[in-house]
Amino acid sequence: MTARYDFASDNTAPAAPEAIEALAAANTGFTSGYGTDPVSARAADLVREMLDADAEVRFVASGTAANAIALSTLCRPFEAVLAHEHAHVCTDETGAPGFFGHGLGLVGLPGSSGRIDPEALEGPLNAPDVSYRQPVAALSLTNATEYGAVYSAEALKALIAPVKARGYGVHLDGARLANAAAAGFDLTRIAGLGVDILVIGGTKAGMPPTEAVAIFDRGLARRFDARLKQAGQLPSKGRFYAAPFIGMLGSGAFVRHAAHANAMARRLADLMPFPLRHPVEANAVFVDMDDERLSRLHASGWFAYRFIDGSVRFMCSWATTPEAVDSLAETLQGLA
Amino acid sequence: MTARYDFASDNTAPAAPEAIEALAAANTGFTSGYGTDPVSARAADLVREMLDADAEVRFVASGTAANAIALSTLCRPFEAVLAHEHAHVCTDETGAPGFFGHGLGLVGLPGSSGRIDPEALEGPLNAPDVSYRQPVAALSLTNATEYGAVYSAEALKALIAPVKARGYGVHLDGARLANAAAAGFDLTRIAGLGVDILVIGGTKAGMPPTEAVAIFDRGLARRFDARLKQAGQLPSKGRFYAAPFIGMLGSGAFVRHAAHANAMARRLADLMPFPLRHPVEANAVFVDMDDERLSRLHASGWFAYRFIDGSVRFMCSWATTPEAVDSLAETLQGLA
Amino acid sequence: MTARYDFASDNTAPAAPEAIEALAAANTGFTSGYGTDPVSARAADLVREMLDADAEVRFVASGTAANAIALSTLCRPFEAVLAHEHAHVCTDETGAPGFFGHGLGLVGLPGSSGRIDPEALEGPLNAPDVSYRQPVAALSLTNATEYGAVYSAEALKALIAPVKARGYGVHLDGARLANAAAAGFDLTRIAGLGVDILVIGGTKAGMPPTEAVAIFDRGLARRFDARLKQAGQLPSKGRFYAAPFIGMLGSGAFVRHAAHANAMARRLADLMPFPLRHPVEANAVFVDMDDERLSRLHASGWFAYRFIDGSVRFMCSWATTPEAVDSLAETLQGLA
Amino acid sequence: MTARYDFASDNTAPAAPEAIEALAAANTGFTSGYGTDPVSARAADLVREMLDADAEVRFVASGTAANAIALSTLCRPFEAVLAHEHAHVCTDETGAPGFFGHGLGLVGLPGSSGRIDPEALEGPLNAPDVSYRQPVAALSLTNATEYGAVYSAEALKALIAPVKARGYGVHLDGARLANAAAAGFDLTRIAGLGVDILVIGGTKAGMPPTEAVAIFDRGLARRFDARLKQAGQLPSKGRFYAAPFIGMLGSGAFVRHAAHANAMARRLADLMPFPLRHPVEANAVFVDMDDERLSRLHASGWFAYRFIDGSVRFMCSWATTPEAVDSLAETLQGLA
Repeated sequence: MTARYDFASDNTAPAAPEAIEALAAANTGFTSGYGTDPVSARAADLVREMLDADAEVRFVASGTAANAIALSTLCRPFEAVLAHEHAHVCTDETGAPGFFGHGLGLVGLPGSSGRIDPEALEGPLNAPDVSYRQPVAALSLTNATEYGAVYSAEALKALIAPVKARGYGVHLDGARLANAAAAGFDLTRIAGLGVDILVIGGTKAGMPPTEAVAIFDRGLARRFDARLKQAGQLPSKGRFYAAPFIGMLGSGAFVRHAAHANAMARRLADLMPFPLRHPVEANAVFVDMDDERLSRLHASGWFAYRFIDGSVRFMCSWATTPEAVDSLAETLQGLA
Repeated sequence: MTARYDFASDNTAPAAPEAIEALAAANTGFTSGYGTDPVSARAADLVREMLDADAEVRFVASGTAANAIALSTLCRPFEAVLAHEHAHVCTDETGAPGFFGHGLGLVGLPGSSGRIDPEALEGPLNAPDVSYRQPVAALSLTNATEYGAVYSAEALKALIAPVKARGYGVHLDGARLANAAAAGFDLTRIAGLGVDILVIGGTKAGMPPTEAVAIFDRGLARRFDARLKQAGQLPSKGRFYAAPFIGMLGSGAFVRHAAHANAMARRLADLMPFPLRHPVEANAVFVDMDDERLSRLHASGWFAYRFIDGSVRFMCSWATTPEAVDSLAETLQGLA
Repeated sequence: MTARYDFASDNTAPAAPEAIEALAAANTGFTSGYGTDPVSARAADLVREMLDADAEVRFVASGTAANAIALSTLCRPFEAVLAHEHAHVCTDETGAPGFFGHGLGLVGLPGSSGRIDPEALEGPLNAPDVSYRQPVAALSLTNATEYGAVYSAEALKALIAPVKARGYGVHLDGARLANAAAAGFDLTRIAGLGVDILVIGGTKAGMPPTEAVAIFDRGLARRFDARLKQAGQLPSKGRFYAAPFIGMLGSGAFVRHAAHANAMARRLADLMPFPLRHPVEANAVFVDMDDERLSRLHASGWFAYRFIDGSVRFMCSWATTPEAVDSLAETLQGLA
Repeated sequence: MTARYDFASDNTAPAAPEAIEALAAANTGFTSGYGTDPVSARAADLVREMLDADAEVRFVASGTAANAIALSTLCRPFEAVLAHEHAHVCTDETGAPGFFGHGLGLVGLPGSSGRIDPEALEGPLNAPDVSYRQPVAALSLTNATEYGAVYSAEALKALIAPVKARGYGVHLDGARLANAAAAGFDLTRIAGLGVDILVIGGTKAGMPPTEAVAIFDRGLARRFDARLKQAGQLPSKGRFYAAPFIGMLGSGAFVRHAAHANAMARRLADLMPFPLRHPVEANAVFVDMDDERLSRLHASGWFAYRFIDGSVRFMCSWATTPEAVDSLAETLQGLA
């Protein structure tokens, strides 16, 4: 029996044909390097178009690095970033923010389903600056959240406003921005909300490894290529990271595939015999399941992670088939 | 007139068909992530086969990061790495070794055509440990060198032996290892020479962005995945970095393409009207050319860099055509 | 009315006469620098004598730096240190461990009165190594704890044994080691317990700014002077940091003064009208007090901090007088 | 025979009586911590008075750390600092700037006797920003220089003006600022020249370990206490670092002692049988001396360092006696 990773994560899927075809199309002739090529320029235009905003746009290999570089741009080593206590930057990136940010602090905030509780911001934002504690310099948000919940623009605004009022920076981790968009989040609102740096996930959206970084505050982008190069995130053959975005954004596949992934999660949720832990708003289904049942699930071939909140996670992607959902659901029903 | 980047670098070329086909072939079905997939395992086997040695092998996105991570594995922040003064790690990576290595020192050594003069090692290796100076902990070598020269295994041995005798580490930057191999450097000797960490260039060898890291000293590989993840170099969709190596190593294209690149450099050297600055042993041709002529060359559409040693560099790649060489040579003859 | 800082901390006190006299005595003639002088050698001997153990000993300016350097010696950036969640390294050093340790992680563990609950170790120690999380590499302990509790040697042993069994390192923050010793903790047991690096507080013990670092594992001490120098903690005029230890250790004042501080805390506790939050085993008294009463206390001239656990802290030192204790107690009684 | 360190460095001397007396005077009563005490405030006033300028002033333990923190305030990791190639920050601080600055680059510039050649600035300042190289962000100057030469205010202005014109920062390492002042350098000109951060050496000027940091650009001082604390340079008992400055600045001893040190160097130079390598403008004498003679000098009891430029260095301090100078000179005459 072969292990099935269909629902283990949304990065276990292959890349979508639109992305691969664009990559093949870009693989011709000689170009200048380090993101100065016409493919990168075209992809950046498409990102700006999608966001309906001006921004510096770069394409990099790693979302972990992109997030960490964004935070280190907004926050000095003796300062701290506010983030949901279960945000990817806090729990799943092996301390990358502290590595790229030379020890910058992360302050984990509570909130249901990965959405920061607005009241939780108050304490840290109002804490007096004292020398022995890293004072707040930025807020990091994630949409869709780690738990597959989706912030509305209004909800983000409520979190961002008090942060910007103090002159602090805002990072938005959009590893699953496509799923948020497919769930109704309006991408053209992001720039107006006060986000300074946005990371747009390509990998989880169905591309080969690539992430876009959009910097709305141009002042922050000064010497950004040197920053990326030093951090190992300025690819010499930049077109390979840009082309997939052309294929996916130009064709509308970026949101269309995410809508499919969301629908598959909905389908799974509807068939799910275990109690749902979080609302299913994007492409994730989290359920309560004990160890014995999880072991039997693994034994049946389906891989799924027990998550940091104790629930078991099933992720859907552009490549998830209804047949796989139904097959998994049948297995789960047998376990429940 | 379109600018021509054929000779600007060996990373201005597209990816070779063998690499792209392997990538397409690997792009099927769901796999586990972070390099634990069968594609990565197969590619690692091929790397070990090519080196005829046991090693931990990882595939990462960036050569700059791979080198910096290797050095930070061998050298603590208060120590230093010996390297040729014009090595890529010293002059072309925006200080990445110091960033990934938290301030580790680089000591630049002289030597003709990028090869370290063995006598230049003596001073630093014999310098007494004093608290106010970063003591030597490692040696970084490059083959082929930045100037397109190729070390023999014997020459490397002479440099490595005194370093290992002191218990220090050795890093080999093989961004152009394929070109060295095509020039006669025996890859199966590397492990026996005492190299601890080898970076094998995929990108410059004609792949989409990917580099292999081979760690011969397994002790150094402990928790290496966490190290890579924190540094933004553990790709979730690892197969996209591994597959090109399968395509290129399995088919012999890795060295075959490099041999073509070397031959193109030879052809250019033979037609070159400007004085050669360095021996043409791999895929680079460096010549003496004044600013006025370089400007006219640029005006004619051909892009070439003035290098750190003051000479002008022409790089050949797997994709360089004899026609392009002849066309460039004709232009150069008109300038000389 | 002048604000009174007698109980604000144990570093608001002046330096004890034994320390100052030794400093004056050492201030004569020319000596070699950077800790190679005879004063530093003599002080190191006294530290080893006190610990009844062999160790490399250095004298540095800052306890924050000493702790952070110790942790960065035991733990690489992609690894983590276990510590009490309210340990000084976690809450009062502005992220210094992450700064000196290039992003190393801190995992906060619960436990009453600053003592780590032994059961809390189990989860982190038994967690599987996964690439996306910083795996444990060391344990950091504090004696006396932030809350003025004192570990017995047996209690420390129970915490250290499972850590050493896995080959991990152990750091002991002894900012208030003198107070622990005065409370009965046997300093000659430390080396045998498996502590690798011990920081012995001079400042809080009544010296001018100075801390001793004792490294029991000599392998860790290799090139330690370069490490200290790079980190700004290798004083050129080393005798000024060593001499106070001669004055205090040679005369027995180190523990004698701490015993006085502990007795003053006991006296204050006995007179305290507010509920004690923690056992009074060393030189600290923590009580429950509401904001209104704390404000009135401040208004009366006495400064005290509200601590991270919500209680209000009163610290005693070598210089605390019974009169001051009684005067404070009287004020507190008026507020209660 | 006891080794004599009188001329080994200017930090081998004891502390001057004015400093020690001030320290003793400050050692009374309880004060608030971390530099918020009245002693620190008074010392800061005296520093501002001496500079005739407004500035944030802090007192720290280590000049190495002070310099490194200053550079990391002016320069991000992917940028570089220009400095004389033999400046203390480049050659004698174990890479501290890269450690505190997370890999920031140092670009060494030539110039006679430690003074940067103004023409040497042009290349780096005019180099185009390219992603693969750390672009310039700051200039680091030293007065008096490592070789005992003294910049005039006009000479500094010529170096600083083009740097400020580009919006870059300026650091002045004043480890021997007292000696420069005693040689005629007007300290009240510093602020007007465009220096952003000045480190004023206490240690080499005859104090116990302490350095003052003056930040003229208040914007740079935001959250500076947190920066210092994280870096292990915010002493809890701040008065011990501030008091010596009160003793030395208030009494005029700061410059008076330096004038004595300079005069002793002049005396030694006048008696020196070996060729002077550098002009004797402050408290250093550098001479040409072969290894055999240096060994014999050491054998005679006098310690002196061979410096990075190959010459042998003799340093004078506030505590150097004419008798010691004459005695050394006699020995040297016997060797020549």
